[in-house]
Amino acid sequence: MEKEILFGAAYYPEYMPYERVKEDIRMMKEAGMNVVRIAESTWSTLEPEDGVFDFSYIDQVIEEAGKAGMKVIIGTPTYAVPSWLCRKDPGVLVETGQGESYYGRRQIFNLLNPTFRCHAERVIRKLAEHTAGAGPVIGFQIDNETKHYGNMGREIQAAFRKAMEEKFQTTENLNKAFGLAYWSNSIHNWEDFPDMRGCINGGLASEFSAFQRKMAADYLMWQADLIREYKREDQFITHNLDFEWKKFGADIAQDGYSYGVQPDINHYEAAKALTLAGTDIYHPTQDDLTGAETAFGGDSVRSLKDSGYLVLECQAQAFKYWTPYPGQLRLQAYSHLASGAIGTLYWNWHSIHSGYETYWRGVLSHDLDTNPVYEEAAVIGKEWSKLGEKINGLQKKNEIALVIDNHSMSALNWFPIDKDLSYNDVVRWMYDSLYEMNLECDVVDVRALDPSRYRMIVTPTLYSVPEEMLKKLETFVRKGGVLVSSFRSFVADEYLRVYHDKAPHILHECFGMSYNQFTEPGRTRLKGKEVRYFAELLKMEGAESMADYEHKYWGRYAGMTHHTFGEGHAYYMGCWTCKETLKELYRKAAKSAGIFCPELAWPVTVRSGVNREGKQIHYLLHYSEEEQEILCPYDNAVDLLTGKSYRKGEPICLSDWDVKILEEA
Amino acid sequence: MEKEILFGAAYYPEYMPYERVKEDIRMMKEAGMNVVRIAESTWSTLEPEDGVFDFSYIDQVIEEAGKAGMKVIIGTPTYAVPSWLCRKDPGVLVETGQGESYYGRRQIFNLLNPTFRCHAERVIRKLAEHTAGAGPVIGFQIDNETKHYGNMGREIQAAFRKAMEEKFQTTENLNKAFGLAYWSNSIHNWEDFPDMRGCINGGLASEFSAFQRKMAADYLMWQADLIREYKREDQFITHNLDFEWKKFGADIAQDGYSYGVQPDINHYEAAKALTLAGTDIYHPTQDDLTGAETAFGGDSVRSLKDSGYLVLECQAQAFKYWTPYPGQLRLQAYSHLASGAIGTLYWNWHSIHSGYETYWRGVLSHDLDTNPVYEEAAVIGKEWSKLGEKINGLQKKNEIALVIDNHSMSALNWFPIDKDLSYNDVVRWMYDSLYEMNLECDVVDVRALDPSRYRMIVTPTLYSVPEEMLKKLETFVRKGGVLVSSFRSFVADEYLRVYHDKAPHILHECFGMSYNQFTEPGRTRLKGKEVRYFAELLKMEGAESMADYEHKYWGRYAGMTHHTFGEGHAYYMGCWTCKETLKELYRKAAKSAGIFCPELAWPVTVRSGVNREGKQIHYLLHYSEEEQEILCPYDNAVDLLTGKSYRKGEPICLSDWDVKILEEA
Amino acid sequence: MEKEILFGAAYYPEYMPYERVKEDIRMMKEAGMNVVRIAESTWSTLEPEDGVFDFSYIDQVIEEAGKAGMKVIIGTPTYAVPSWLCRKDPGVLVETGQGESYYGRRQIFNLLNPTFRCHAERVIRKLAEHTAGAGPVIGFQIDNETKHYGNMGREIQAAFRKAMEEKFQTTENLNKAFGLAYWSNSIHNWEDFPDMRGCINGGLASEFSAFQRKMAADYLMWQADLIREYKREDQFITHNLDFEWKKFGADIAQDGYSYGVQPDINHYEAAKALTLAGTDIYHPTQDDLTGAETAFGGDSVRSLKDSGYLVLECQAQAFKYWTPYPGQLRLQAYSHLASGAIGTLYWNWHSIHSGYETYWRGVLSHDLDTNPVYEEAAVIGKEWSKLGEKINGLQKKNEIALVIDNHSMSALNWFPIDKDLSYNDVVRWMYDSLYEMNLECDVVDVRALDPSRYRMIVTPTLYSVPEEMLKKLETFVRKGGVLVSSFRSFVADEYLRVYHDKAPHILHECFGMSYNQFTEPGRTRLKGKEVRYFAELLKMEGAESMADYEHKYWGRYAGMTHHTFGEGHAYYMGCWTCKETLKELYRKAAKSAGIFCPELAWPVTVRSGVNREGKQIHYLLHYSEEEQEILCPYDNAVDLLTGKSYRKGEPICLSDWDVKILEEA
Repeated sequence: MEKEILFGAAYYPEYMPYERVKEDIRMMKEAGMNVVRIAESTWSTLEPEDGVFDFSYIDQVIEEAGKAGMKVIIGTPTYAVPSWLCRKDPGVLVETGQGESYYGRRQIFNLLNPTFRCHAERVIRKLAEHTAGAGPVIGFQIDNETKHYGNMGREIQAAFRKAMEEKFQTTENLNKAFGLAYWSNSIHNWEDFPDMRGCINGGLASEFSAFQRKMAADYLMWQADLIREYKREDQFITHNLDFEWKKFGADIAQDGYSYGVQPDINHYEAAKALTLAGTDIYHPTQDDLTGAETAFGGDSVRSLKDSGYLVLECQAQAFKYWTPYPGQLRLQAYSHLASGAIGTLYWNWHSIHSGYETYWRGVLSHDLDTNPVYEEAAVIGKEWSKLGEKINGLQKKNEIALVIDNHSMSALNWFPIDKDLSYNDVVRWMYDSLYEMNLECDVVDVRALDPSRYRMIVTPTLYSVPEEMLKKLETFVRKGGVLVSSFRSFVADEYLRVYHDKAPHILHECFGMSYNQFTEPGRTRLKGKEVRYFAELLKMEGAESMADYEHKYWGRYAGMTHHTFGEGHAYYMGCWTCKETLKELYRKAAKSAGIFCPELAWPVTVRSGVNREGKQIHYLLHYSEEEQEILCPYDNAVDLLTGKSYRKGEPICLSDWDVKILEEA
Repeated sequence: MEKEILFGAAYYPEYMPYERVKEDIRMMKEAGMNVVRIAESTWSTLEPEDGVFDFSYIDQVIEEAGKAGMKVIIGTPTYAVPSWLCRKDPGVLVETGQGESYYGRRQIFNLLNPTFRCHAERVIRKLAEHTAGAGPVIGFQIDNETKHYGNMGREIQAAFRKAMEEKFQTTENLNKAFGLAYWSNSIHNWEDFPDMRGCINGGLASEFSAFQRKMAADYLMWQADLIREYKREDQFITHNLDFEWKKFGADIAQDGYSYGVQPDINHYEAAKALTLAGTDIYHPTQDDLTGAETAFGGDSVRSLKDSGYLVLECQAQAFKYWTPYPGQLRLQAYSHLASGAIGTLYWNWHSIHSGYETYWRGVLSHDLDTNPVYEEAAVIGKEWSKLGEKINGLQKKNEIALVIDNHSMSALNWFPIDKDLSYNDVVRWMYDSLYEMNLECDVVDVRALDPSRYRMIVTPTLYSVPEEMLKKLETFVRKGGVLVSSFRSFVADEYLRVYHDKAPHILHECFGMSYNQFTEPGRTRLKGKEVRYFAELLKMEGAESMADYEHKYWGRYAGMTHHTFGEGHAYYMGCWTCKETLKELYRKAAKSAGIFCPELAWPVTVRSGVNREGKQIHYLLHYSEEEQEILCPYDNAVDLLTGKSYRKGEPICLSDWDVKILEEA
Repeated sequence: MEKEILFGAAYYPEYMPYERVKEDIRMMKEAGMNVVRIAESTWSTLEPEDGVFDFSYIDQVIEEAGKAGMKVIIGTPTYAVPSWLCRKDPGVLVETGQGESYYGRRQIFNLLNPTFRCHAERVIRKLAEHTAGAGPVIGFQIDNETKHYGNMGREIQAAFRKAMEEKFQTTENLNKAFGLAYWSNSIHNWEDFPDMRGCINGGLASEFSAFQRKMAADYLMWQADLIREYKREDQFITHNLDFEWKKFGADIAQDGYSYGVQPDINHYEAAKALTLAGTDIYHPTQDDLTGAETAFGGDSVRSLKDSGYLVLECQAQAFKYWTPYPGQLRLQAYSHLASGAIGTLYWNWHSIHSGYETYWRGVLSHDLDTNPVYEEAAVIGKEWSKLGEKINGLQKKNEIALVIDNHSMSALNWFPIDKDLSYNDVVRWMYDSLYEMNLECDVVDVRALDPSRYRMIVTPTLYSVPEEMLKKLETFVRKGGVLVSSFRSFVADEYLRVYHDKAPHILHECFGMSYNQFTEPGRTRLKGKEVRYFAELLKMEGAESMADYEHKYWGRYAGMTHHTFGEGHAYYMGCWTCKETLKELYRKAAKSAGIFCPELAWPVTVRSGVNREGKQIHYLLHYSEEEQEILCPYDNAVDLLTGKSYRKGEPICLSDWDVKILEEA
């Protein structure tokens, strides 16, 4: 781990209206920036014609960055294909459920197309060969925000059928696993394996989605293997993993933000190709800046390799909704570090004057001159160059794991809880409630979960779970762990077959309750609060009801339960209700688990870890435009930003969008 | 007519996660069930490969049912085609206005495709041959919820052009009938007959819709003819006619309920193939259970053959919105009988563990164990096995006909009254108002209407009416009948040509009024109540205005009128307003017609008929969660459920979702 | 210019259910009508088979009209193609971004298809040859509401690529102009020029849109050239230019009205083919009748040739929303004259009994008899036949130009301000505010603008402006002009490259301010009023702030500014706020410009001009159902309708939807 915190931006000199690399490097340097990411999505500039290469724009940046003592990350250019390649072979363009694509957008290629692979390999090799030896180059980013792009083309369908044959051997096994007899979908000859574009079997369709994700992860591994042939030992391989994008209703180009689990590639699979986890995180700003997206994204990506990660993209001004208030740019930068990031790069350095993302504005506005955002970036740059050693590479050991699962997410797209409640809505409801209580957690893929590392495991709608994992969770509780699960957890197996015995399958003894009815809540309330979207009618079989439903007919059933099982505890939230009630459950669960529950709560966010000197570091991140005073919760602590010391109980004044970094003595 | 009321469920042992036919039959039997429907939509199980048949799963059910003294209905499996058939001939899949289909869903076949017909014939023959001799088999259901599936393929278009040539002889006749000169659509050579996919002539497009419906009905007749070659005398041929499905906005799989006239097959045409009318009825539950869908569906299907009908599908728990409150399952079961049903079958016996309808839950939940719904079904089963003889096969002779018409429905899709007011909205507004007043009616296809059978005829937006029918209606009134018509009735002829003289065409003398203007109502009110969607500006020409519009400019026109014409009366409601105002009109109309208007009104629904002993039976169906007391309206009556007797005026206590079956002495 | 005001209707005897040309002409004549437009969209009647022509229905109208002393306008029939033509060559049907079209609708042809052109030429020549000599024929309308129909077919794409090669010479020039390096879209060989259907470069896509519009205008010029070979000197060539159609949410066929700048053909280009500007104007009615659409459309079309224009289509009853209140038909008719129209024709004479527009009702309802609308038309007819000489051909010389631009409109479709604020929303916000203040203006295409003709120029979001025009505007202000510009003006060049220096480019000195940040307004207010959609954070550099934003962080920036520059004034509105605040700015700007600002304001609209006798004519148009009294603002004036004289300050009583035409002494 470098001592220096990486601070910089994506940089596209080839998009500039006039030659100004030197001026840009000068301005970056002056703002304390020390790294640029270049070259991703520039294939048509790098290889203007089939087999003709031009590295001049890359060389110039490396040279000027080198002169300025700055570092360079090289992105492979593959995610936006050049026009000549699609003309050569129209099959390069992905075929999706909506049919064939037209050339134009990025991320429209068929990643199994041989022509694409052959040309991608050549340009990657050329680029790696050309740049790996350059001093300023510290690492490579392979491709960019890779996904499967809804690939339903010939190649992927053939590969999927082959994979199914290998997995199930006989069509009877396949029929049985997915219940294909339903609506006459069973097949009795592999030749009859149907086109996935029409598939209405949620289990098989979700299996195909998983396969699509795997193809995308395999593709990244393929790129990584190519890079590995050229890169130096000290150079990293990273990728900007991104998150499900949530539209916020503005309904214009580039409307949305990083919301939850990514449906179109699996981060846990994808991360295997990387030596350094990387990510893109975008979030609401101005009055809607809460830090939750930064924390969720950070906790997710840090957990992939359980170490520092790089924020390859985050927003400067972006579009009109995201012009930051004074102080917000700095608050968000520190929030990344507080989750364990080793650096952040803005997307992008300068606003672009043409093209689709003209208004995804960078640090510089279109006038390419200084501006309030640039000036605030310079403040960050200066602080980080001073504090780097103290705060870079924060180590965390969290006691809580929040478990995520792409397959349950697919399942709930087929069998939705409610049109207004997605899988990620439940994930965020459960994650954000922890976040707001300052209960830090790892966000862990179900396939990567090692229960022995945690005291408390939280499962938001973990719908599809193989029996083996159910048994692991039961053992976890029996041995003293605390399990907190929401409605719609443990419903179906890995093929989305609903378990056909007492629910929750295997775990009903652990939870001390069962149910065989559920309902739209209607007028139902729980602890006086509205219940929405889903209510399981829980019958006590050993558990205590933490609250019964308030309803003429459903009043005989519980809505949330607690059960002591073996050495541990199992909590179950059978319905969606307000965060306040969920937090009440969390408070008891944390207590059962012996986890300290801080008194400070959002909008004062506390994120902690250990720095390389072994000292406890606590970030106080103030997500509010109101000033407030809090009392120092630590015995003796010094604010690394101001040098001011605080004793326990001493008032700490937090101005609007303020940051304190308290180092415990 | 059997003395026993049919009570059972659709049953799919082939969908079960493990072998449990014996256990299922035992549980059904224990719940008083006496019938299962099997085999529809199981083609790929029945004929796993082209020409290879497997009847084992059918035989087992017939055998076990036989042992238990239960009956079996055999469904032909055609409505979900197997994958091998579509691989053999991709033309089996329907081509719609949205293009070709992918294999997967049910109901996606081209019912005119020769390959489909050839294979469907073979499997139907095999199945009928195999099962017709079995003792427990009481009848056959042909296909399932058959419709035209939006068929716009080559075969149907060629057949339609041929039909048009036969009907019109010359292109000039065609041009004139539909006004094709408009926008240069006229043709002068049959070769120029255009592709219906681009048709924007509402008349011709509606003619095509009627043709599509006819093809679907012909297809049913074709299946019935095949079955007739095999079936025993005592075996019936039925089909589950279903209704227009109304989404209720949950926007998830299987969101909606049986709302109104079916657009994609004509029940009157389809019923010609059947010896027993059958239907599927689904409806809102919990706080939204009103009984209106059950009554509307029942009145529609009973009227097809003017005799008992079978409810082949109704809901047990279905999806989360439809988990019944205690008592509701029983109330809905009796409501079917009260409309004249001879039995009901749930869809389905058990919740399915895989596939598209995993959450269209059956009597059993996924745990396949007892549960509150199963237990309530058992109560029904027990009561029916006792009461069957007394209440089965209720005979009705209604004095009111509510007239429905597929062609007017098509017309109003092309020429909508308002985006928020469909044809079926008007039908239901007029039907439900009768229903809530406990004025029972037949729901009759306009082509089946015999005015002489009724004292009062109600026409909701009967937009497209040939002159012959207009004359019939005029005669009906002249001879003493009472006609109640809504706005947008009698507007156009059978080709959707708006009549070009005084409106309403032919009937303006009968109604004693005319209009040549209409308007969006805006701020208009009628009798102090809001007017919405449409207001015809009625000018009195002999009629009395029952109410003038309340509006600065439209106040000079009437909104509802009454006219004495010949021996009869004609009422006209020129706008959409609240049900209360419509009911006021109905009250006067019923009085004119000499029809008794009960004092009891919804939520206490009264449905009456004559049982096989010739006794008057009155169902009191209580659609409310509040208890209430009513006074017995009959001189001497005994509640068949409790044996309790009531005299006129004696209080009858109705608990929540209660049922009484009063037999008059 | 004729003395007689043209008054009539589009007439389609070929759509009539029975022969009644004589009766129709009699009824028109009786209503004071003097003109009919015929034959457009009747190709399949005119040429029922390839090469076979039938003029009988045209001849009959010309003959009967001639007998009655009425005039005829002949429309070429090309905009609805016959079925036989599409069967001959399916390429006649346009291919759009949504794929190929099916035959049926009008306006679905590929206007570059050679088969279409060849047959269109023949039918136009035949028709012109046949009718040009007829006495009653006063002119020709070429095609009908012509647009490019989203043409993305082979021919237009090839022509576009060729045009780009000619314009840019090298691919490098092309790449640079549009910034194609972004997302690897640059090309280095003209063969790689991509399919426009996938284009995501807003600049190039907008260039293509402009090309599509040009092809439509060229097509009109081609038709005009053909007509010119046949027409007499005294016969005009016109076309019904229409406007962007705004849906009002009724979501049924034919839902919407004439709202703003037409996106799919450029009026300025199209008008070059015409000798008489013509237009279609539809507008909300009843409580929503404001006159704004009539004024906007009139000011736009009159400005094309700076002379009288013909309203070829306006509504009689149209669909249910547009049934006029008594007086409204007359008010709207006079409103057209008040904008400088030389006549108006209803669409259409009679309601059609079949086809897509059955409910776009004409002067006659479907009963083809008299009705209130017909009767009110007769009032207009009578008044006009008396007043024609006095009021026809009103001349206007406006001091204000409101500048419109198709290219900025395209740009804002790619780079929207907000999903709820379109280009035309801003145009109408700025236009309507002038209209409501009774500040009359010309609506001028940016390419036609001659600043020297005006004292004040208003630019609503003039986003894309070449440097040359920016310099013209700077000169205009320097020399004493008053410039009023809104946010998002002067942002980008003609290729939609955002200018890369201080904003607003070139004009920042003229405005005395600049900005490099903008934001979604959130809670921002200006002068206590809500700010919505967009707020530029204006920094004063010589200008005076007319109001600073009210917001914790943005309060340091101005929202509207005024600057004296050279001899003139520059006003800038940096955000969208209420009309009241905009009007305040206008009031000051008008004063700076020495333009008189009337005290009377909407709902009393004043529209003025000079009649052929050189007298000042003032229309008072009363857009309200309330009566009111105003004071005569003119020294001595006589109401031409009543003959009543008014002196300055004397009360004039305006009844609901009233009209006065004051001639100054």
